[in-house]
Amino acid sequence: MLPMTSDTDLTQAGDLALLYGKDGKRLILRLQSGAEVQTHHGVLKHDVLIGIEWGSRCQSHLGYPFVLLQPSLDDLLLHIRRRSQIVFPKEIGVVLLRLSVAPGKTIVEAGSGSGAMTTALAWAVGEQGRVHSFDRRADMQSLALENLQRLGLEKQVTFHLRDISEGFDVTGADGLFLDLASPELYLAQARKAIRGGTSLAAILPTTNQVQALVEALPASGFGFIEVCEMLQRFYKPVAARLRPVDRMVAHTGYLVFARAVAPEVLAEIPAAQGDESDTAPE
Amino acid sequence: MLPMTSDTDLTQAGDLALLYGKDGKRLILRLQSGAEVQTHHGVLKHDVLIGIEWGSRCQSHLGYPFVLLQPSLDDLLLHIRRRSQIVFPKEIGVVLLRLSVAPGKTIVEAGSGSGAMTTALAWAVGEQGRVHSFDRRADMQSLALENLQRLGLEKQVTFHLRDISEGFDVTGADGLFLDLASPELYLAQARKAIRGGTSLAAILPTTNQVQALVEALPASGFGFIEVCEMLQRFYKPVAARLRPVDRMVAHTGYLVFARAVAPEVLAEIPAAQGDESDTAPE
Amino acid sequence: MLPMTSDTDLTQAGDLALLYGKDGKRLILRLQSGAEVQTHHGVLKHDVLIGIEWGSRCQSHLGYPFVLLQPSLDDLLLHIRRRSQIVFPKEIGVVLLRLSVAPGKTIVEAGSGSGAMTTALAWAVGEQGRVHSFDRRADMQSLALENLQRLGLEKQVTFHLRDISEGFDVTGADGLFLDLASPELYLAQARKAIRGGTSLAAILPTTNQVQALVEALPASGFGFIEVCEMLQRFYKPVAARLRPVDRMVAHTGYLVFARAVAPEVLAEIPAAQGDESDTAPE
Amino acid sequence: MLPMTSDTDLTQAGDLALLYGKDGKRLILRLQSGAEVQTHHGVLKHDVLIGIEWGSRCQSHLGYPFVLLQPSLDDLLLHIRRRSQIVFPKEIGVVLLRLSVAPGKTIVEAGSGSGAMTTALAWAVGEQGRVHSFDRRADMQSLALENLQRLGLEKQVTFHLRDISEGFDVTGADGLFLDLASPELYLAQARKAIRGGTSLAAILPTTNQVQALVEALPASGFGFIEVCEMLQRFYKPVAARLRPVDRMVAHTGYLVFARAVAPEVLAEIPAAQGDESDTAPE
Repeated sequence: MLPMTSDTDLTQAGDLALLYGKDGKRLILRLQSGAEVQTHHGVLKHDVLIGIEWGSRCQSHLGYPFVLLQPSLDDLLLHIRRRSQIVFPKEIGVVLLRLSVAPGKTIVEAGSGSGAMTTALAWAVGEQGRVHSFDRRADMQSLALENLQRLGLEKQVTFHLRDISEGFDVTGADGLFLDLASPELYLAQARKAIRGGTSLAAILPTTNQVQALVEALPASGFGFIEVCEMLQRFYKPVAARLRPVDRMVAHTGYLVFARAVAPEVLAEIPAAQGDESDTAPE
Repeated sequence: MLPMTSDTDLTQAGDLALLYGKDGKRLILRLQSGAEVQTHHGVLKHDVLIGIEWGSRCQSHLGYPFVLLQPSLDDLLLHIRRRSQIVFPKEIGVVLLRLSVAPGKTIVEAGSGSGAMTTALAWAVGEQGRVHSFDRRADMQSLALENLQRLGLEKQVTFHLRDISEGFDVTGADGLFLDLASPELYLAQARKAIRGGTSLAAILPTTNQVQALVEALPASGFGFIEVCEMLQRFYKPVAARLRPVDRMVAHTGYLVFARAVAPEVLAEIPAAQGDESDTAPE
Repeated sequence: MLPMTSDTDLTQAGDLALLYGKDGKRLILRLQSGAEVQTHHGVLKHDVLIGIEWGSRCQSHLGYPFVLLQPSLDDLLLHIRRRSQIVFPKEIGVVLLRLSVAPGKTIVEAGSGSGAMTTALAWAVGEQGRVHSFDRRADMQSLALENLQRLGLEKQVTFHLRDISEGFDVTGADGLFLDLASPELYLAQARKAIRGGTSLAAILPTTNQVQALVEALPASGFGFIEVCEMLQRFYKPVAARLRPVDRMVAHTGYLVFARAVAPEVLAEIPAAQGDESDTAPE
Repeated sequence: MLPMTSDTDLTQAGDLALLYGKDGKRLILRLQSGAEVQTHHGVLKHDVLIGIEWGSRCQSHLGYPFVLLQPSLDDLLLHIRRRSQIVFPKEIGVVLLRLSVAPGKTIVEAGSGSGAMTTALAWAVGEQGRVHSFDRRADMQSLALENLQRLGLEKQVTFHLRDISEGFDVTGADGLFLDLASPELYLAQARKAIRGGTSLAAILPTTNQVQALVEALPASGFGFIEVCEMLQRFYKPVAARLRPVDRMVAHTGYLVFARAVAPEVLAEIPAAQGDESDTAPE
């Protein structure tokens, strides 16, 4: 069990908690005896928040109502401290499935960025697994580390401050995620970091970048290329007037997936799967 | 490490494998010494497939080319034997994140169906975790069990052949997934199965069902209701002519999420989060 | 030729014009000799704007640059003075096609609202056509009339200040558009207003309203029911970084279409076309 | 009134009609006394179809039921005889609005293709308007002409069998539509065909083509560039189980719009409007 995922009915000192106010504001904190949390609507003493049932009502010294929740992975990802565009849950979900991220796996990522994907990977591989996170910017990696520490997930992650043009100093990984402006420049290095047959995933904001990556993948031994985008549309959850919300996120990035295969495979089996969705089982 | 997720460079007897033919056909099999696999393009002996590198080329006795891959969770889910509509990876990804499914967690689901979501949950909770899967139809649960056994994931799952209108015989779970025609009928039972503050997720094909569930949730102690749908659009991965595929899956189901909270919370904090996406961080 | 659609190369007094500033602000005005237009960046005399080529640069007395354009129908619709939600171009386009709105046709609409759909209908039926626009609120109809007059389109429109529960005082129309909260209450009246075989279109924001309308249509002699929604996704038009914009309009309304048919037809031919899109020609 | 848009209650010889069978099959025919129509379910004499109310039931000599409808513009477009990809109603609608196509206007298009867009343009400009349709392939233009004649719309169209690299032999048009593989090669010619300030629209299937066009537009005097795509999602129109259909058309093409402006305008006002949708009125 990961440190922040306490499974008791009552809150305990050391637990990560989400304090949700009547005004819709969210605060993520770690409960510790004797501490206090300041809000726009007054102060709450942690001691009042410890030992109560998750989902309970609590209030500030001004009487303002809050509810105390265990943050979901979603909550943690959306409230990470960031100095870069983060990967969003709608993309993270499909990446975890495509890379078969599971307890005990070893996954490589570059770059670390603000640590959102690092958080999700560390969460999913668990205490028996390992995430290797590469970045050449010390400041970004420090931020990612801080974010992981805040959640108690840093033990599953090895940070490498390294320019990956010199190669990943990891081999035999179970999957690889690239969140870089020009992933097509590092495919030979990526191929060496992972086991045969495993998958690479990349996220890219523009069609031009997707074109460049798709063009480069086969020459580095990657086949089974797929490109997709994820759209998540929220609804106003009102039973008598159910309808989509007015506006939505239209774009965060394109996802590209490919698998490391033997060169002789690429000569015979088309690298691009094309209209896979057209034949997807219904 | 889960039984099917071997992390060696070379294939081993006992590994799950995906045999992908030049014609795009996929076969999922478990490698065992002495066995054979029949294809439309000839026979392959497992002994030829064992001890080679993942991602290698192999061929049938007729010389037809195949590539041998370790199946991703995606592959396993899409090739499950089914007698019912399954939940798709595009929805499973966000559900796993929202329910914070992670190594060591305890998750409840109803019904078992063909076992696609069961597979994903068992995969994600790992050997330290537990999935409780409820269904009142013995035939469906047998199918789900078979599908889990085929993948070596059955040890993480407890199947309950039970009508949940009598309640789940589980308490304190970390999350709950409902894939039922009328989940609004079982909310009191659902509330008792999970810890305070944790989440329920449901998938529903029609707007009418979403309305019924959204209507019923607050009375059973669920707040923080959110409704969304996931759309996944694939592209033809051709660098010089990058474009979406012609047709796509337009709908599988609506996702509804809610959190178990204290009744006094619901009186003060709006149950429906409304336009959360409108304020999502960019 | 409609009054505002001058087809000369040079601007003329009496033309509708769109003044587009360097700051992206848009102003729609009618050119008249001797007049002036005030902007946040200074004053422009109309006399300077008259007799120049459409698409020319012009500037305020402060030297601030503008370009003078003939407004497109799109421009006019999006800049209409409104006191109600208007119908958007993305929906108007398909409605015009479905209702076969064309020069010389007679089309009925209710309600008038702010006059956006009235504008599009008046534009499309031309001087030989006629639009009958019904509303029971005098204030809304005055606003719609003003908007039409501003564009010189009022001659094609007959406004009826009338509660349509008493029936439309029009028969034999070529098509009918309903933008009402409860169109299902006026279907008998709608049926009498149009010729046999012609189409009704409605726009509705919620799924509940769509359900109510779809439920009611067959009993009033409408078949061939179709429901759809239109999504328009814009891209950042930058060649080297082509990508969708970050956010988009997720929802304005659902469109419902139906055709007036003989009752005996409805008994034999399914009212709902169901998955028409699934068999649409590619 | 256009020839095919009879506005009488009863069908007349000479009318275009849509015969819709119980099996969902559609037939478009022109009613003429003495003629017969063959179907898979028997023969219908036109004389039985003439003089009845639109929307009536009729039947073949085998008793198979049909309903007789006046085809909408949508019906006509989707049932055009084609030897090329046609432009779809979902795109045609927004193009008509953006180009301000209206009764009496003069619009240029290249190429003619199978004549779907030509049909919509001829329909919308009416008898006082004019469509100039260019193609260098005589076979395609013959097909387009046949399709227009079948609908009685050929009088509004002038077909030009001409390579537009030599220029359009038309000037002063009110708008221009390009459905070509490489529209970026003909922008100087396009600019000369239209009046200042008016709009060009293009449809393009791939992102690469959009990039090439967006890149080239400013150098030929086009600004106000916008790129979008239209998605139309149909629902199963069943009141008690309202939900989207399972599959949809995911892509037909990207639309690019631009306006002819003076070169000095382009120097000062950004050619690309970028995130216009982000500021669209709600």
